[in-house]
Amino acid sequence: MIIQLDKKISEKEREQIKLMVKDIGYKTTRVKTQIGEYLIGIGKREFDIRQVGSLPGISDIHRVSDDYKLVSRKWKVNRTVIDLGDGVLIGNGTLTIMAGPCSIETEKQIEESIKHLVENNVRIMRGGVFKPRSSPYAFRGLGSEGLKLWAMMARSAGIKIISEVMQVSQIAEMYDEVDVFQVGARNTQNFNLLDELGRIDKPVMIKRGISGTLEELLSSAEYVFSGGNEKLILCERGIRTYEKASRNTMDVNAIPILKEKTHLPVIADPSHGIGLREFVEPIALASIMAGADGIIYETHQSPERAYSDAQQTLDFMESERLINRSRKVFDVRESF
Amino acid sequence: MIIQLDKKISEKEREQIKLMVKDIGYKTTRVKTQIGEYLIGIGKREFDIRQVGSLPGISDIHRVSDDYKLVSRKWKVNRTVIDLGDGVLIGNGTLTIMAGPCSIETEKQIEESIKHLVENNVRIMRGGVFKPRSSPYAFRGLGSEGLKLWAMMARSAGIKIISEVMQVSQIAEMYDEVDVFQVGARNTQNFNLLDELGRIDKPVMIKRGISGTLEELLSSAEYVFSGGNEKLILCERGIRTYEKASRNTMDVNAIPILKEKTHLPVIADPSHGIGLREFVEPIALASIMAGADGIIYETHQSPERAYSDAQQTLDFMESERLINRSRKVFDVRESF
Amino acid sequence: MIIQLDKKISEKEREQIKLMVKDIGYKTTRVKTQIGEYLIGIGKREFDIRQVGSLPGISDIHRVSDDYKLVSRKWKVNRTVIDLGDGVLIGNGTLTIMAGPCSIETEKQIEESIKHLVENNVRIMRGGVFKPRSSPYAFRGLGSEGLKLWAMMARSAGIKIISEVMQVSQIAEMYDEVDVFQVGARNTQNFNLLDELGRIDKPVMIKRGISGTLEELLSSAEYVFSGGNEKLILCERGIRTYEKASRNTMDVNAIPILKEKTHLPVIADPSHGIGLREFVEPIALASIMAGADGIIYETHQSPERAYSDAQQTLDFMESERLINRSRKVFDVRESF
Amino acid sequence: MIIQLDKKISEKEREQIKLMVKDIGYKTTRVKTQIGEYLIGIGKREFDIRQVGSLPGISDIHRVSDDYKLVSRKWKVNRTVIDLGDGVLIGNGTLTIMAGPCSIETEKQIEESIKHLVENNVRIMRGGVFKPRSSPYAFRGLGSEGLKLWAMMARSAGIKIISEVMQVSQIAEMYDEVDVFQVGARNTQNFNLLDELGRIDKPVMIKRGISGTLEELLSSAEYVFSGGNEKLILCERGIRTYEKASRNTMDVNAIPILKEKTHLPVIADPSHGIGLREFVEPIALASIMAGADGIIYETHQSPERAYSDAQQTLDFMESERLINRSRKVFDVRESF
Repeated sequence: MIIQLDKKISEKEREQIKLMVKDIGYKTTRVKTQIGEYLIGIGKREFDIRQVGSLPGISDIHRVSDDYKLVSRKWKVNRTVIDLGDGVLIGNGTLTIMAGPCSIETEKQIEESIKHLVENNVRIMRGGVFKPRSSPYAFRGLGSEGLKLWAMMARSAGIKIISEVMQVSQIAEMYDEVDVFQVGARNTQNFNLLDELGRIDKPVMIKRGISGTLEELLSSAEYVFSGGNEKLILCERGIRTYEKASRNTMDVNAIPILKEKTHLPVIADPSHGIGLREFVEPIALASIMAGADGIIYETHQSPERAYSDAQQTLDFMESERLINRSRKVFDVRESF
Repeated sequence: MIIQLDKKISEKEREQIKLMVKDIGYKTTRVKTQIGEYLIGIGKREFDIRQVGSLPGISDIHRVSDDYKLVSRKWKVNRTVIDLGDGVLIGNGTLTIMAGPCSIETEKQIEESIKHLVENNVRIMRGGVFKPRSSPYAFRGLGSEGLKLWAMMARSAGIKIISEVMQVSQIAEMYDEVDVFQVGARNTQNFNLLDELGRIDKPVMIKRGISGTLEELLSSAEYVFSGGNEKLILCERGIRTYEKASRNTMDVNAIPILKEKTHLPVIADPSHGIGLREFVEPIALASIMAGADGIIYETHQSPERAYSDAQQTLDFMESERLINRSRKVFDVRESF
Repeated sequence: MIIQLDKKISEKEREQIKLMVKDIGYKTTRVKTQIGEYLIGIGKREFDIRQVGSLPGISDIHRVSDDYKLVSRKWKVNRTVIDLGDGVLIGNGTLTIMAGPCSIETEKQIEESIKHLVENNVRIMRGGVFKPRSSPYAFRGLGSEGLKLWAMMARSAGIKIISEVMQVSQIAEMYDEVDVFQVGARNTQNFNLLDELGRIDKPVMIKRGISGTLEELLSSAEYVFSGGNEKLILCERGIRTYEKASRNTMDVNAIPILKEKTHLPVIADPSHGIGLREFVEPIALASIMAGADGIIYETHQSPERAYSDAQQTLDFMESERLINRSRKVFDVRESF
Repeated sequence: MIIQLDKKISEKEREQIKLMVKDIGYKTTRVKTQIGEYLIGIGKREFDIRQVGSLPGISDIHRVSDDYKLVSRKWKVNRTVIDLGDGVLIGNGTLTIMAGPCSIETEKQIEESIKHLVENNVRIMRGGVFKPRSSPYAFRGLGSEGLKLWAMMARSAGIKIISEVMQVSQIAEMYDEVDVFQVGARNTQNFNLLDELGRIDKPVMIKRGISGTLEELLSSAEYVFSGGNEKLILCERGIRTYEKASRNTMDVNAIPILKEKTHLPVIADPSHGIGLREFVEPIALASIMAGADGIIYETHQSPERAYSDAQQTLDFMESERLINRSRKVFDVRESF
């Protein structure tokens, strides 16, 4: 059960509600976010919801049978919109495009990428500065220095940035620079990281685990939300299956299913979803057609020379074509 | 290596070619289809292809490194078009729609289904008369009698029919009635059935196995082609993964990958691909956007009362909407 | 519900029972096997089982909630023993070993294999004469001629044989020669084949599908049993997963789970389960320790020269060591 | 390439070696562990290994083609033994048993668990104090306080403890108390955590990821080793597949394959591997038979009342039986 508390609730009223919920046999968790205050009641006993709902200090009350509560659409039917400032909104009924290199590499690379985005009216740039690499001997990213340079250049061009955070200590290190924190597929169930991201007031995009279920993805989002941060975005990036013809199997099914289950925006990552440059476009367009609020993909001025993910990175011509076609496909979908 | 023989080749020339290929150390298989005659050479030794290619009686010769040869686009770049007669073509640059119930149930059901298709200008009707059911106690279909009634009614309405064949003995039983034989996901590697379907002159649509790789699907098609039947269609229908939110995981990646690897038409089955009625439409549209030559889906006048697959079957209003949107999405894709 | 009918039941009594079950709202299927006669009632309504059970002509009655009924241990607690004659029993509390080449190749090969088995007191020989091959250009087995030669030689040495049947028409072709019909992993859901194997009086071993669930394996066994043949054996042979270090992932979990769910004997196939010669032994021993009634594996006088499955085939020295160790491990398990 | 440096190497000699390796075109990483010093060379060019090997200051040099180097058995054939002190060794040719509750709950529970272990001569106790839970509303463990109490009680009974570390900041917090740090399945690719665990001098047991490949598990171990910590143990705990009859699919294949690929000890976790209490014993015994150096499993004085993992936890009678049988099975294996 989710009890949305009135903004002007008194401490006494709050205690009274807690007591009543405890009486029913439910355990409560208090959640205070940027936007509101909630009591989450966890339990199994049947009870008359009006019994609680009529107490003073409650603005709304809902039963939610899912294991995840606050991110469920059973409670909040209106879709969440993330506002990055300067007119950049995610999930507001327009198409969000996030593009950029796998890794931030050099000043020149940043400059050319930004130029490409600006020319195509793309407002969000992706890029890794702390890279999760399965081998300890591989390139691990430019770190904080790279991030600072990138952020400075992006800001002066009116571009927002999204970058992966890999551990708790990096949150503070990255906080001033990034506009959206990305939780990568290997960290979807790094619960300490999720807890800490719940304590900040910046948007977080959570990628589905490499073999994560949709239920687990929603529970990970619930971690951040119940920690106090409502500014959440989900990302489908393909799952691990036995099929070897593609790097991952893009689970396009996940897109309409997530849109039904949660009020959070859903972004598709076709670069990781198929892992083969020549097929990134059709999978991106298919994902938009299936209902995605946006796409995130890898592009680089010369993909062959990219430090990482070269085989799934588009060049700028391919990227421009994808942007144009994505917008057309989105318009067709919205016309339905 | 694929050696395409000249139509006017003499027996002596054919023997000379075989001898030469044998000399190189390759095993040959002779393939004679409705359209042409081929020698398939299997081996690993390096050799000068001109050495063979210059012999009389050869119209064309190709090296094909894939395990599947005749269905590979490395050999035949032009896409295969399947002609069902009366102006019904599959894979010719227009969108193919195949719709109908999971199982053929009653005369009234057939009648209403046909009416629905005719009104929406859909030319191919799907329906099962021999049903593969995992429990021996479930409904197994109306069999030959149902098929005869259905075929008669469909023909008089100008509708072509596709239906699943489950065993060799059913080929003859169904031959006069069906326009396309469907090989189901449980029979994709029923090699005897594939062998026999190679001996007939009717189109065959092969569904991907429940956990079949794309490589295996292509090899199954190679069975039919090398048996003598070039009229082949492939169908992606979702694979088995750990995700429980959907019945199967529709592998949309498979669509552009297959279109790259083979010259055969590729059809998407969103009904089985996601298995949930409310999401059949977005997955169908996504599949078309990803490059499918057509879709096959389940529709029924009252899905709740369908004998099988009720939870993934569209009613006629949903079906009509899907048909209209599919055509619009296809047009957008073709405009790219 | 399973109603076991009395051997001396009258036609009138049988009709009375059917009527009563129909009145409750259940659909009945009559099953007559080599051993007994049953009525299987399928339905969902609650009812008092004594109401039916007290009718004349019934020797026993059970509720079985599983989708599979006759193969469930909820009905038949005593474990099934398969008698191949000449003192060769499967599932009777001793360890069954089935060994031999992937494919029957030559007279000499058969001779040496039989000699190896006789010396090690192994009573059942495996071997393929009709081979399911994913490529149409690969070796497809010696067929009936090979089977006849093999059966003659095996019989004179007191060896029973098990071989794969791939289609309905092969049942009659193989009937006189084989002692156990094997249904391969690609045919586990070939329901027509299962139906026909239900009509014969020879043991059938069903392999789990390449990505088949245990539920599906049990339902496939139910097909054969409900067709009239109780002489059934199940075989775990590894499933398809994303792990590439082994050919398949041997699902050792399946062994104790199947032993709990069904009264049928369970055999392990470590050759396909791991697919790597050097690890066949530990996986075989682990499977026995987990509760398998026996093992089936591939051995050849010179594995490198085997026509198929060379990389997972043991030589005779390795095979002898495996046999000896298997028996020791089995004894330890039985001592618990 | 792995270059093992001489203990008495001079700085000048070290530089000379680095230079030579750089000349060949290889990138070097210097690794200094508790035991020795290494230069890891990463590159693809062919070269004469004697050219480098003859330089002064080198005690040994090896080519290792795997992506993981220091954990590979291609380099170090002798198996690693982990010494926990007081005569407790892991991987030394005796069977290691680690048992205890999923979560540390109460003083009484710790006391009874220790008593059970001492009576059965088990020297290592498992238990969670920081619990990774997919729902934020579930019990998350007793934390540091619980750990301190537990460690004090265990020490006075001569019991070593293993517990999961979930984030970098917990390493220091847990350091004085735990004898082995466990990296859980959700953190196998938490590379920052692995990096930090490379800087300490305490043993680390890494669990395979929920859908992790063996290659990835070995690469994660390489992280810790290349960070400076050679005291590593690997743990197979089941993988995620489509099969729903068990919680996970225990990949018993992984055990002999890992033992072949790496010199590190391999422990099996049958509790998570099958997830069903009644089958933990056969899977534990099967894992030992397949070559595991030990087992880790969950036991509790009254499993029904355990705060977590109740359905896969053994009671003390079942645990005692498992311990006794495990030792017998291990002895049989070692006698081979």
